[in-house]
Amino acid sequence: MREPERHAETGVRLLIVCPDRGGIVAAVSAFLFDRGANIVESAQHADPDDGTFFMRMEFDLDRLPGGRDGFERAFAGEVAERLGMRWRFDWGERKRVAVLVSRHDHCLLDLLWRWRRGELGADVVGVVSNHSDLRGDVEGFGVPYTHVPVPSGAKAAAEAELLEALEPGRPDFLILARYMQILSPGFLARVGVPIINIHHSFLPAFVGADPYRRALDRGVKIIGATAHYVTEDLDAGPIIEQDVARVSHRHGLRELERIGRDIERVVLARAVRWHVEDRVIVHGNKTFVFE
Amino acid sequence: MREPERHAETGVRLLIVCPDRGGIVAAVSAFLFDRGANIVESAQHADPDDGTFFMRMEFDLDRLPGGRDGFERAFAGEVAERLGMRWRFDWGERKRVAVLVSRHDHCLLDLLWRWRRGELGADVVGVVSNHSDLRGDVEGFGVPYTHVPVPSGAKAAAEAELLEALEPGRPDFLILARYMQILSPGFLARVGVPIINIHHSFLPAFVGADPYRRALDRGVKIIGATAHYVTEDLDAGPIIEQDVARVSHRHGLRELERIGRDIERVVLARAVRWHVEDRVIVHGNKTFVFE
Amino acid sequence: MREPERHAETGVRLLIVCPDRGGIVAAVSAFLFDRGANIVESAQHADPDDGTFFMRMEFDLDRLPGGRDGFERAFAGEVAERLGMRWRFDWGERKRVAVLVSRHDHCLLDLLWRWRRGELGADVVGVVSNHSDLRGDVEGFGVPYTHVPVPSGAKAAAEAELLEALEPGRPDFLILARYMQILSPGFLARVGVPIINIHHSFLPAFVGADPYRRALDRGVKIIGATAHYVTEDLDAGPIIEQDVARVSHRHGLRELERIGRDIERVVLARAVRWHVEDRVIVHGNKTFVFE
Amino acid sequence: MREPERHAETGVRLLIVCPDRGGIVAAVSAFLFDRGANIVESAQHADPDDGTFFMRMEFDLDRLPGGRDGFERAFAGEVAERLGMRWRFDWGERKRVAVLVSRHDHCLLDLLWRWRRGELGADVVGVVSNHSDLRGDVEGFGVPYTHVPVPSGAKAAAEAELLEALEPGRPDFLILARYMQILSPGFLARVGVPIINIHHSFLPAFVGADPYRRALDRGVKIIGATAHYVTEDLDAGPIIEQDVARVSHRHGLRELERIGRDIERVVLARAVRWHVEDRVIVHGNKTFVFE
Repeated sequence: MREPERHAETGVRLLIVCPDRGGIVAAVSAFLFDRGANIVESAQHADPDDGTFFMRMEFDLDRLPGGRDGFERAFAGEVAERLGMRWRFDWGERKRVAVLVSRHDHCLLDLLWRWRRGELGADVVGVVSNHSDLRGDVEGFGVPYTHVPVPSGAKAAAEAELLEALEPGRPDFLILARYMQILSPGFLARVGVPIINIHHSFLPAFVGADPYRRALDRGVKIIGATAHYVTEDLDAGPIIEQDVARVSHRHGLRELERIGRDIERVVLARAVRWHVEDRVIVHGNKTFVFE
Repeated sequence: MREPERHAETGVRLLIVCPDRGGIVAAVSAFLFDRGANIVESAQHADPDDGTFFMRMEFDLDRLPGGRDGFERAFAGEVAERLGMRWRFDWGERKRVAVLVSRHDHCLLDLLWRWRRGELGADVVGVVSNHSDLRGDVEGFGVPYTHVPVPSGAKAAAEAELLEALEPGRPDFLILARYMQILSPGFLARVGVPIINIHHSFLPAFVGADPYRRALDRGVKIIGATAHYVTEDLDAGPIIEQDVARVSHRHGLRELERIGRDIERVVLARAVRWHVEDRVIVHGNKTFVFE
Repeated sequence: MREPERHAETGVRLLIVCPDRGGIVAAVSAFLFDRGANIVESAQHADPDDGTFFMRMEFDLDRLPGGRDGFERAFAGEVAERLGMRWRFDWGERKRVAVLVSRHDHCLLDLLWRWRRGELGADVVGVVSNHSDLRGDVEGFGVPYTHVPVPSGAKAAAEAELLEALEPGRPDFLILARYMQILSPGFLARVGVPIINIHHSFLPAFVGADPYRRALDRGVKIIGATAHYVTEDLDAGPIIEQDVARVSHRHGLRELERIGRDIERVVLARAVRWHVEDRVIVHGNKTFVFE
Repeated sequence: MREPERHAETGVRLLIVCPDRGGIVAAVSAFLFDRGANIVESAQHADPDDGTFFMRMEFDLDRLPGGRDGFERAFAGEVAERLGMRWRFDWGERKRVAVLVSRHDHCLLDLLWRWRRGELGADVVGVVSNHSDLRGDVEGFGVPYTHVPVPSGAKAAAEAELLEALEPGRPDFLILARYMQILSPGFLARVGVPIINIHHSFLPAFVGADPYRRALDRGVKIIGATAHYVTEDLDAGPIIEQDVARVSHRHGLRELERIGRDIERVVLARAVRWHVEDRVIVHGNKTFVFE
């Protein structure tokens, strides 16, 4: 007879945001200790500016008598409500991700390559594109590819089709791996999962289109890339990760793009790994990354 | 009897901007070779976007029969005019610099320290400030300090006084080492020498005031500093050098400022050295740095 | 009447190393919570390789009824002994540091400058040098300067004199800010406080003398600096911090030294700050830095 | 009728090493100008330590009356011999490269991906491996894959077989993309083309095997990778490029390897591009990279 309520859990994560006050760590760690949890990793941050406390804990459990639901109910009743917490347990289920892409292949292939070698920590359930160029590459990895064109003037219909294309994969989050379409607020509301975008500049510099061209025109000595969560405000969502590289007057537009591609894929990979490992807490328009 | 026309010259620099075409290097190097010049360093760049050619040469001369004027006249007549060059010889005279500063001491003291150990390559002829806080430090280095307050509503008079204060030092260029006043177009026109400013962000992000505060609010993962030539457009002049450092949610405003100070002084020092060594060519709103 | 047992404590730090097992965080945080502590910052690390657990907590106390001694005794009896902890409270007293230097001024002046502006977090109680070159600079900061020459063949006597020179300042730790003498094991044993050294290479590359010369000869494209605790093995003590900069064939020995100076002072400053804030735990020959 | 002697040449490169003296640039640029060459890019370096002059020029030719041989003979007779030059023209033929690999796929796949998108600048003529794991990937790119096992005690025979396997592709250079076998001096002599290796540490730190493990044991705060030309001395050949990334005590061996993979492939890609574009001059055991 199967006894799911007694199995062990590993890699459970608990994320907490609450008003800062004494006793938070003591209350949480006592709750976990009483249930036989072994804390593997713990990090916290108290923001002096607005008095908010953030915590991420990762722990193993030898047994789970009341099941996950019982565990969560007990945590709410014994700890969270009293301390005014916004909280979330992640029980270590492998996350599912769908990737949206246009024509640039570098971020997409890099993600698929990391996924294949087991480095991504999530399952790629599908790729959707407004172009058909990369179908062969994607299917070569054994990943379903759906072409959803976005004809001029027909964005609403295209977004409806996009939602349909995403549905069977039941993704836990989306990655825009250089998807060159702006998603409408309506789409964001209906898709209902976090979306990570890679922007090819060190935001907030060069918000919007053509950042490499504008970097060249401005004569900057450093270019960069930014991975951020998508919000209704274009390129203004919470920044997860950024990195940069030096350039000089010797580099033309194509060199900037080439150098930038290497930054983009590394920045995106880091942001995705942190998201997958529940290391990112969003608060206001900022992220707290417990890497 | 003095024979200035026969003395040797070392470290002479020639900077050229002209339309790109064949024969430029040949013409210039033949001219120099015919006069016994030994080219110590040479760098060039042809911009494919607008067909402009840039060159910096540094050379020694064993003798200079017609003097510097004769040399320059010959270059104009035999080479420069035919090839449509904008050109400039720098005969290696030690440049003179005045520093403008408000209350932050880190960039100023770093410059003075580099100057004292002979690392700056230029002579600091004076420091002018709209505050009197740093007088002791500056005078301790044996450098004249002038206090030119900028009372609210009396900027024009203050700028006139500033020009007067700068005049005796006959500076070849100015450094704004965190000078927290905006200089008027009129001042820029009358002062007539290049001005290098250090801005405490990786421009064009956070143009204007309070960049560290705004970096904190935006939640960027990288902060930086930018050294640029001052133009009438605030923070929009040609960028000479930039650098950055990683930050995280753990860093509050004071930590950003502390980390930023270390970037600012290094970026400013590099920009000043390149300017002093005539390694920077400004073209349009961009720099070509032959480091 | 003085009531020391009722005063508040802020910025108390607790450092723990012990075998990893369940309940450590719960036990420590319950102990602190019971005594009214407010945890300001907390970080932990469980090393999977050797099963060791590391923790740093920083907290404030509103009252301290049994005084510091009573608090520490209670912690030992109620928590530490049972869990096999190596532990240490730092009660936030300002640390005292003495600096040893030879002729290079850049690290020394940088430390003194940071000290003067309140950025160092420790008090500089004295500078000792085997040369007299920098006396004027040091005394200009109001810091005592002692010249302890190290004549060839008289190292033992010099080290005895050095110990004597250090004694009145009662330093909590020493900084070797480019002190070009090797300290004997006997000296290290007798001085009895941690010593931070700045080495001008990215160790373990170029252990020993003349690292910039050897970097030039090897043709590396990156140079660096390393701050480490001094042990009997030359340049082999636990590394606290490292950083690097790119170089090229255009840089000769003097340029490497110039670029290196900027790395050295920043790396040393970071290491010193982390040490001062008790962010560094040494275990075996490695450091765990809870920055 | 075909007139090969009159065709245009683009992207011709001239590399020169000779004793430094006056008139080199003038002689070379006059020679080129007389033949209608348009210099596209030029860089030079005079090493003050040993008085050697290095130059790289890239130019286009509208016509080539005497053919390439005639051009080279004329250069030898009119310029090179008189000035004691070691020189080489590269006429812009696409280089051919073979890749040797063992089991790690990251550098290999990155090279193949860059090759496919036209970013490599060279043709991959084949991959040879002492394992068969990566055959499918390589052949998926349309590149021949040869399995040459290296049984213990049979290295000489294996190297002979390796030479045979390489021969049909007539590679201009080899890349060791994590090839975990040491090549014998005999092999190096017979293969007769440059070999670029990627080493997974910032050499000269951690020369030899297991650098990530040793980096972990030493507790370094920075890891890196080095691309260098292979010589008879293991890991001691001329360094072409290096880069690094920060790590901390939180990173175990697998994290170091993961972070390292991203550095390795970028460093190798840069080194290969510079080699392909004839930007690297080897002199003694050092490289001069005119990037």
